[in-house]
Amino acid sequence: MTERAMNVSHPVEEGGPKAALFCFAAADAGEWAIDSVETLCGDPLPVARKLRVALGGESGGDALWRLSGTVSNLRYTKADEKQALAVRSPLLGRTSSVCASLIPIRKSAAWWALAQDERRTIFEESSRHIAVGLKYLPAIARRLHHSRDLGEPFDFLTWFEFAPEDASAFDDLLGALRATPEWRYVDREIDFRLRLAPGA
Amino acid sequence: MTERAMNVSHPVEEGGPKAALFCFAAADAGEWAIDSVETLCGDPLPVARKLRVALGGESGGDALWRLSGTVSNLRYTKADEKQALAVRSPLLGRTSSVCASLIPIRKSAAWWALAQDERRTIFEESSRHIAVGLKYLPAIARRLHHSRDLGEPFDFLTWFEFAPEDASAFDDLLGALRATPEWRYVDREIDFRLRLAPGA
Repeated sequence: MTERAMNVSHPVEEGGPKAALFCFAAADAGEWAIDSVETLCGDPLPVARKLRVALGGESGGDALWRLSGTVSNLRYTKADEKQALAVRSPLLGRTSSVCASLIPIRKSAAWWALAQDERRTIFEESSRHIAVGLKYLPAIARRLHHSRDLGEPFDFLTWFEFAPEDASAFDDLLGALRATPEWRYVDREIDFRLRLAPGA
Repeated sequence: MTERAMNVSHPVEEGGPKAALFCFAAADAGEWAIDSVETLCGDPLPVARKLRVALGGESGGDALWRLSGTVSNLRYTKADEKQALAVRSPLLGRTSSVCASLIPIRKSAAWWALAQDERRTIFEESSRHIAVGLKYLPAIARRLHHSRDLGEPFDFLTWFEFAPEDASAFDDLLGALRATPEWRYVDREIDFRLRLAPGA
């Protein structure tokens, strides 16, 4: 069973009964071919050809780097927003979704020192993070992984899947988010674009 | 340097620049003597005599069990509440604080499936969790560790330190919290009472 098949047969959702750990491992072998990498701010990661996604740990000896994160409870989303997202959010693993993106992000110490209401105001009332994302559903499937509490180098790993014809819509989504007040608190961001390797 | 000295010389606060991992290890040796254990709901833990607290990992081969958690950002606290807490919250490690308590807690799947605003409403508007805690400052020093995203058996580990003459106030605090609507979502809770071992 491929990693992709495994991930699909174990759908993991934010707010699910148990936090689920995922590992992203970059190596010379993997189901996702890395088409391009753009380091938007902060330090880059070593260059690799392929990426593997695994539920749970990942122990392949060939990994150039590994990033881990947990699918966890919602941190900012209100009940009505949660409902709107649930209605429109597709599952990962659609046959048409041969394009993917991994975007590891770290936010600044100033962000983490803010109180919950201050972060929420920047996140949604100022930046419309949820509202912007909703406009791209169901085209762009998404899963957010929390990494900060694990002592990882990034705070979040966001995984996106979409069809080739939605690649420009995905660029629009990222452009809209990166122009927001929230993004002033992003101090490390790398944008990996991936394509499902033949046979995966 | 004892563990206690180490923890004091590295004060770790919620909303600090970096998430900090702590490990609580139960064994026959440790700086805190376990005076009593009460399992309020859910499964108990194996009986031990002493408890060690370590910043970072803990690898003593003698541990009967280990629980880990990360001091992380605030999840519900608003800016005015954060300010009120900062003014009144003492540091851990006061010479007079020879009493401590470790309370590991797990919340139900129903809690984690709620949206952020629903959890906040139960936490503070209904249960007055922050307001109740404020009444016991600066007598009861406190540090919250998040464990759920680490795949741990509990969601939170709360550590309290206080002087012997404040032990009944501490009981009052716990009684008040356990009577709240928030506590209907607690499905595992163990209450360890500790005393600083001589020479620690």
